Amino acid sequence: MKDVLDKEDFQVVKGGITYPKGIKATGVKCGMRFNRKDLALIYSEKVADAWGTFTTNKFKAAPLVVTEKNLSLSGGKLQAVLINSGIANACTGEKGLKDAWEMVNYVSKGLKIDKEYVAVTSTGKIGEFLPMKKIEDGLKEAISKLSISGGTEAAEAILTTDTKKKEIAVSFKLGEQEVKIGGMAKGSGMIHPNMATMLGLITSDISIKGELLQEALKQVVEKTFNMVSVDGDTSTNDMVLLMANGLAGNKLIDKKDVAYYKFLSALQYVAKYLARCIAKDGEGATKMIEVEVQNAVSFGEAKKVAKAVINSPLVKTAIFGKDPNWGRILAAVGYSGAEIIPDKVDLYLKEKIVENGQPLKFSRQAIHEYLKLSDEIKILIDLKMGKESVTVWGCDLTYDYVKINTKYN
Amino acid sequence: MKDVLDKEDFQVVKGGITYPKGIKATGVKCGMRFNRKDLALIYSEKVADAWGTFTTNKFKAAPLVVTEKNLSLSGGKLQAVLINSGIANACTGEKGLKDAWEMVNYVSKGLKIDKEYVAVTSTGKIGEFLPMKKIEDGLKEAISKLSISGGTEAAEAILTTDTKKKEIAVSFKLGEQEVKIGGMAKGSGMIHPNMATMLGLITSDISIKGELLQEALKQVVEKTFNMVSVDGDTSTNDMVLLMANGLAGNKLIDKKDVAYYKFLSALQYVAKYLARCIAKDGEGATKMIEVEVQNAVSFGEAKKVAKAVINSPLVKTAIFGKDPNWGRILAAVGYSGAEIIPDKVDLYLKEKIVENGQPLKFSRQAIHEYLKLSDEIKILIDLKMGKESVTVWGCDLTYDYVKINTKYN
Repeated sequence: MKDVLDKEDFQVVKGGITYPKGIKATGVKCGMRFNRKDLALIYSEKVADAWGTFTTNKFKAAPLVVTEKNLSLSGGKLQAVLINSGIANACTGEKGLKDAWEMVNYVSKGLKIDKEYVAVTSTGKIGEFLPMKKIEDGLKEAISKLSISGGTEAAEAILTTDTKKKEIAVSFKLGEQEVKIGGMAKGSGMIHPNMATMLGLITSDISIKGELLQEALKQVVEKTFNMVSVDGDTSTNDMVLLMANGLAGNKLIDKKDVAYYKFLSALQYVAKYLARCIAKDGEGATKMIEVEVQNAVSFGEAKKVAKAVINSPLVKTAIFGKDPNWGRILAAVGYSGAEIIPDKVDLYLKEKIVENGQPLKFSRQAIHEYLKLSDEIKILIDLKMGKESVTVWGCDLTYDYVKINTKYN
Repeated sequence: MKDVLDKEDFQVVKGGITYPKGIKATGVKCGMRFNRKDLALIYSEKVADAWGTFTTNKFKAAPLVVTEKNLSLSGGKLQAVLINSGIANACTGEKGLKDAWEMVNYVSKGLKIDKEYVAVTSTGKIGEFLPMKKIEDGLKEAISKLSISGGTEAAEAILTTDTKKKEIAVSFKLGEQEVKIGGMAKGSGMIHPNMATMLGLITSDISIKGELLQEALKQVVEKTFNMVSVDGDTSTNDMVLLMANGLAGNKLIDKKDVAYYKFLSALQYVAKYLARCIAKDGEGATKMIEVEVQNAVSFGEAKKVAKAVINSPLVKTAIFGKDPNWGRILAAVGYSGAEIIPDKVDLYLKEKIVENGQPLKFSRQAIHEYLKLSDEIKILIDLKMGKESVTVWGCDLTYDYVKINTKYN
């Protein structure tokens, strides 16, 4: 995969989920949460090719079970997505499943579309049942408010304790046609006794074969959303959905040609942007941390190293403390379980500070200043063994993380 | 293995590492740390059968490399152990290795014993070289002070930011003979920009065949020290050593008979006691957490579940917040990667609060009170699939953990 991170092939524009042609959305207050938007609806005028990736947590929430089922029934097509925040509908058994199917019914009836074209998802408190009447009423309001300018409202309605809404839009040309991609996400937030959930929703008006859409999404998610780690906990509700309705009018992409890679690169940019937003807005975070592992023997080994470092509480607190604590980083590399040769490892934090597993002379004060002044901290680990690289994103571990997550409700 | 946790077969007595016959120890200030004991020496009058378990971190510190080598050269015999705190002698390359061997030489000369009977270990700051002159001089003082009442001084000298010394002694009868075991440990502490290290040192005067000693240690460490997790970070310097000098005069244990199992059960008690001390004294901890996973399909699967729960920052902060947040516990069970059936999982926190994967009605206030009033919190997870069980120990995640680990030096 061409890892295009510059923006040569596409333009970033103002906008979000409703930027592509034929996509409407909105966010309303249905009353599940106090005086905050808590119900978002996305609608595509035309049935879209679609695919999703879902949490690997075995306690998979009911709406994810339902959405996976619908994607399978429809053969990878969707026309609407209903998302509520406030209650996750996880660990809710048979009744939870019934409620999730009922949400599908409401949307199907309200928008007059086939049931199997409806995706639903929830984020919030687990072990509680959804207030179905509120959702039914809220949905009616949402349908009446659907608009091509409603993307931002939708992006607000899916947030929990996120401090910022997360949305992005890009456009690029395929021949004469302008193709658009829009995305929104929510990150790790807590409401009530609960857990972090990551949601990503991406729309496009591109015309692309379903299988290629699926492949593109899988590939992109693996390198973006799956590379975010706020605290190493995997939610019951994590989900990323991609819809493409074909209204851009480009020649159908049915093979991996230049057009496919253009799309892939724009899609990756969107997903990476949203993933980084989630890391930046991690609970209590003061700094985003980017860990890049270079020259591993395989992608898997690189990932093990990167994930061990980004999840290490000792590394995370050191960054919060602006402490150039290379020893903690090497220790995490060492216990990652990955194939490494300690005597080969180089480490860069602003500059090269470890070479062949041993510290170089460096100015602690200079690195301390870097850690103090930068909002985005880059840790680069060169294993010098193979050719595979990985980048992951996380954040520091702070007093506020503890505070946010200890509050007794 | 008979998991004897009651004390029927042995007595817990006051004492530590020097409780067994023929074991002397001391702790002195060699000047590596400011005005604190930082050098401990343990000596057995008679060459002891011995074995060790060592960190799995690939950045294994020099003294561990040296000690493993000596255990191999001597065929599992030791007569002395030198431990310094303050500097870990990790990530120090060739010079670090040379220094560790030099420590061996000092001890060998000073005590007039074979080099291969000497173990050395270090805990503290990594990437710095040992002050060899201070160690040489400190060792001379230590040798002159070796005594059968010096166990507590040794237990003090190995601490870093531990808030309490950790020692224990037990005795039991084999026939007419009294057999003694003494132990000390240090837990997760930080000094300077550094990492947590776990050291366990256990002595006995039992007479036992070397292979059985090794087997007993491996088995016991796997269920005790290896089940402690303060923050999921594995140090470069973790080590547990066991020495048995045979001076108790019992009939040599050369097979797995009743005497062996008596020893095993006393040894397990000692190791478990020290392991729990380490968890209780975890950095910034206000509460010890014990997670027991019952009825897993295998020991490995049980361990995956238990480790996921004990390492979850969300579970750890919830306990600190006295919040009966069962959802976070189930989520950790779900992402552990272990073989589980979500709809079978029961969860007990003071009482059964989740049955078959769904919450029961319970008084949040009552559980909150339990979390508030107890220093040791027990989480019991029943997978209801097989017959294997595991218990692990950890602690809550607090403001003080962040504080201790963020301080810029």
